[in-house]
Amino acid sequence: MLTEKTVSQFLDELASSSPAPGGGSVAALAGAAGAALTAMVCNLTIGKKKYADVQDEMIAVAQQTEHLRKELALLIDKDTEAFNTVMTAFALPKGTEQEQLARTAAIQEATKSATSIPLQVMKVCQQALHHTLTVAQKGNKNSASDAGVAALMLQAGCAGAALNVRINLNGLSDAGFVQQSSQQYKDILRIVESLTREVLVAVEVSIGGN
Amino acid sequence: MLTEKTVSQFLDELASSSPAPGGGSVAALAGAAGAALTAMVCNLTIGKKKYADVQDEMIAVAQQTEHLRKELALLIDKDTEAFNTVMTAFALPKGTEQEQLARTAAIQEATKSATSIPLQVMKVCQQALHHTLTVAQKGNKNSASDAGVAALMLQAGCAGAALNVRINLNGLSDAGFVQQSSQQYKDILRIVESLTREVLVAVEVSIGGN
Repeated sequence: MLTEKTVSQFLDELASSSPAPGGGSVAALAGAAGAALTAMVCNLTIGKKKYADVQDEMIAVAQQTEHLRKELALLIDKDTEAFNTVMTAFALPKGTEQEQLARTAAIQEATKSATSIPLQVMKVCQQALHHTLTVAQKGNKNSASDAGVAALMLQAGCAGAALNVRINLNGLSDAGFVQQSSQQYKDILRIVESLTREVLVAVEVSIGGN
Repeated sequence: MLTEKTVSQFLDELASSSPAPGGGSVAALAGAAGAALTAMVCNLTIGKKKYADVQDEMIAVAQQTEHLRKELALLIDKDTEAFNTVMTAFALPKGTEQEQLARTAAIQEATKSATSIPLQVMKVCQQALHHTLTVAQKGNKNSASDAGVAALMLQAGCAGAALNVRINLNGLSDAGFVQQSSQQYKDILRIVESLTREVLVAVEVSIGGN
């Protein structure tokens, strides 16, 4: 599993001439880091007298965000697996007509899966961003920059995953699936842009100054 | 070292109630991932007949980007070390007037260092983005989404590091240092926004479609 490699090894594998892991896994990693930072701000708020009135909310947000973080961490590997399945399908024999039909079907099936994974990354990033907004508005103000970085990571993860959705949609012939996925990624991107702006406004209020 | 931990362990430490590692280290990690993806696109372009005319350029860009990636990976740890030094300075005794003076001086010195690290992250992300633009425009078009994710990571790393520069500048009394650093981060952010837009335009040309 990629998440069991050291950060150094992960970066080495990323830079190598192997196409996987690639941008899809990095998008999921950025999302996981954003969710983890959101949980950290909760944990730096819980137990502080000054924030006693949001204590219960922060405990709940921490739990929910940690759940999303773990899902995003799993998606780091799932994206690379989905990509490898597409490559395996492309390598299938195409000597006979029957083989060609089977290969085309396998490629279509694998590409649908490789589209669904980054779409899932986008959905989970969006969910996590709602929590980032809560911690940016109500959490420990000393950690305002961490809430801001969390939002930037979730946004970049989401936008990066969208590029992976789109490059896969280009190879699909199921018009219904393409139309539906296309609408989904556009809707999520719009919501995520708006949420990120809200987080950064809250961060700005806390940081201000220079 | 943080980069010698597994990705899972790194995310766990991030989410914990310890303030370090935090957003500063994540910003450097995002930059390192962006640089690594840029190098990957080079490596997926080198040796391909279709891209023979940019072969030498891609070899040079890969080398330079890998150098920047390694610097960003070191900055993951340096940011956390700088933060811990600030915390140590805050914990110094303040019983006597002399102790108070020494403590204040130590906090100022440590905070300057904690400002310089994210500024350095921003500078290196900016340098890497120039290379990302080259690979987005001239590299393997099958890896267009990877070049796009690379730019999104470098941009988010840069914007995240800027928040860390700003939160530290708020605690500094050296007006000259504050003014100079403030100008630097604003200049870099402007250039990085513009470079990222250029990369995404090039990616759009390659991906198009949905």
